[in-house]
Amino acid sequence: MSSEVVEDEISSFFESSPPLKNMDGIIKKLNRFIKLNSSSRGENHQSDWREEDRVCVTSGGTTVPLEQRCVRYIDNFSSGNRGAASTENFVKAGYAVIFLYRRGTCQPYCRSLPDDPFLECFEFRDKRNIQVHASHLEAVKLAVMDHQAAVADGRLLKLPFSTIYEYLQMLRLIATALKDVGSCSMFYLAAAVSDFYVPWESMTEHKIESGSGPLDIRLAQVPKMLSILRSNWAPNAFCISFKLETDSKILIEKATKALQKYKVHAVVASELSTRKEEVVVVSSSGNVVVRRDCDKPDESIVEYNLIRLIVDRHSTYIKESHS
Amino acid sequence: MSSEVVEDEISSFFESSPPLKNMDGIIKKLNRFIKLNSSSRGENHQSDWREEDRVCVTSGGTTVPLEQRCVRYIDNFSSGNRGAASTENFVKAGYAVIFLYRRGTCQPYCRSLPDDPFLECFEFRDKRNIQVHASHLEAVKLAVMDHQAAVADGRLLKLPFSTIYEYLQMLRLIATALKDVGSCSMFYLAAAVSDFYVPWESMTEHKIESGSGPLDIRLAQVPKMLSILRSNWAPNAFCISFKLETDSKILIEKATKALQKYKVHAVVASELSTRKEEVVVVSSSGNVVVRRDCDKPDESIVEYNLIRLIVDRHSTYIKESHS
Repeated sequence: MSSEVVEDEISSFFESSPPLKNMDGIIKKLNRFIKLNSSSRGENHQSDWREEDRVCVTSGGTTVPLEQRCVRYIDNFSSGNRGAASTENFVKAGYAVIFLYRRGTCQPYCRSLPDDPFLECFEFRDKRNIQVHASHLEAVKLAVMDHQAAVADGRLLKLPFSTIYEYLQMLRLIATALKDVGSCSMFYLAAAVSDFYVPWESMTEHKIESGSGPLDIRLAQVPKMLSILRSNWAPNAFCISFKLETDSKILIEKATKALQKYKVHAVVASELSTRKEEVVVVSSSGNVVVRRDCDKPDESIVEYNLIRLIVDRHSTYIKESHS
Repeated sequence: MSSEVVEDEISSFFESSPPLKNMDGIIKKLNRFIKLNSSSRGENHQSDWREEDRVCVTSGGTTVPLEQRCVRYIDNFSSGNRGAASTENFVKAGYAVIFLYRRGTCQPYCRSLPDDPFLECFEFRDKRNIQVHASHLEAVKLAVMDHQAAVADGRLLKLPFSTIYEYLQMLRLIATALKDVGSCSMFYLAAAVSDFYVPWESMTEHKIESGSGPLDIRLAQVPKMLSILRSNWAPNAFCISFKLETDSKILIEKATKALQKYKVHAVVASELSTRKEEVVVVSSSGNVVVRRDCDKPDESIVEYNLIRLIVDRHSTYIKESHS
């Protein structure tokens, strides 16, 4: 497909999208966050802080409404665990992180909380002080202290989305806002973006009737925004995309194709059933298998080693683009 | 459609469903909960406690997988707010509530928490005591104290589901477990159950390829389990179903049809845009509009008046069935 055709498809996708709510508010937040300098970031920043580095981490699945007044929609499975864990490790590595996440999915610093934290973690001691049960103390401290510190220090901005329309419009806003940061900015696109959608104008306004007989739905392909992100929106940013498959046989082949097609700097490939144990970082310099370290308790998630590798690659990229 | 045809459809739906995980554990929990008598329920039960009354509140939307190893699925919009608020009011009215809810949706006693409670509600004072910000004190107390008390006193059992297969299998287990409670049991079916699904055996195993061109999906109708709940699973239980529409013009007509077709005791009808302001309780004794009381802060949700009405109707039903 020629790039002109892709651009036409993308223009018509955006033209027919329902307008983003509170767009001005989001733009203000973004610009304030990106312009923050390290001196205004408080005392908590680490020695390896690199003032310029910004990463947009996308996380969770997008929804595709089947009705304009949305009751039914198609969703993509994603807990948001990868994006949340990666965000924590990017903050640790000195990045300021824009966390573009699906409403209701896993939040940074909250991964170790039980499913029902208010039922399991706390008890009231007196009027204002609640006690944390010993077994959940570390998890709650992380969720409250580290989480608040990251936000207060200007190292974490959280922006929620639900639909694919919101996601793509917000991604474009972020790319535009990050343009001046150039090669020091990164897009780490861990969100599970829908491949198919029902174009807004061809959608039924009211709830689909459950009369008699089967229901046939025709879904159009979502235009591949990754091309336009790379070529127009943020051409100098370091760009990582993800490929998740349930069939291990086709995984590396599909990741390699995506690398070539979208000209991203690396594709993180994983199989659904083993995604928490290992990923393969596919890039033009070859494929690297990254596994989690079971021996080190604090680091026993695959994202620990993954983000170390990605940050290292980004540093090399920044040096090369400045030389 | 004859009742035999419906029964055949339902048998084949269950036969082709993926088996429920931890079924034995769920059955044990259910039986223990239902057999609890008021004396073992601690000191917190209220004066209007009615020992026998049990209600199963269903809440949130069901998902319909499009692939066996599920990445994509169709979802029904439902925050779970109605079910959570109703559960609190049933507990207050003396019921023991089985809360069958969609994972990740709104929980009883947690409706007033902010979206990101760990970021907004707390700060750590010392090693184990976290302080609650004054503005969120009441909301956190409710979420922790009232919530824990309801569970500890045996007045609330929470059971999560995600797919329509899980939901319907669990609903059948609950109905079976409640059979002996007879007319003192109630089903308050506020969950947004999918009308359409892809039969498991005709489903693709792996992720649908996003090759070229549009995607056509054919969805079959989910057999109407409400008929079989009423006729076979729990014939003596008081049964309330819900009808949510986006088009107010057809709402009452559709609710009335559902009342007649499924022989439930009432249908709670609401329109998507005004569902938090008012509902219409449609029953054979006529239609009653229930609104929220804006004047009374504690009671300013429509579920406060709704549950009062439903509990009253249930009492009459119990008396009539014992006479």
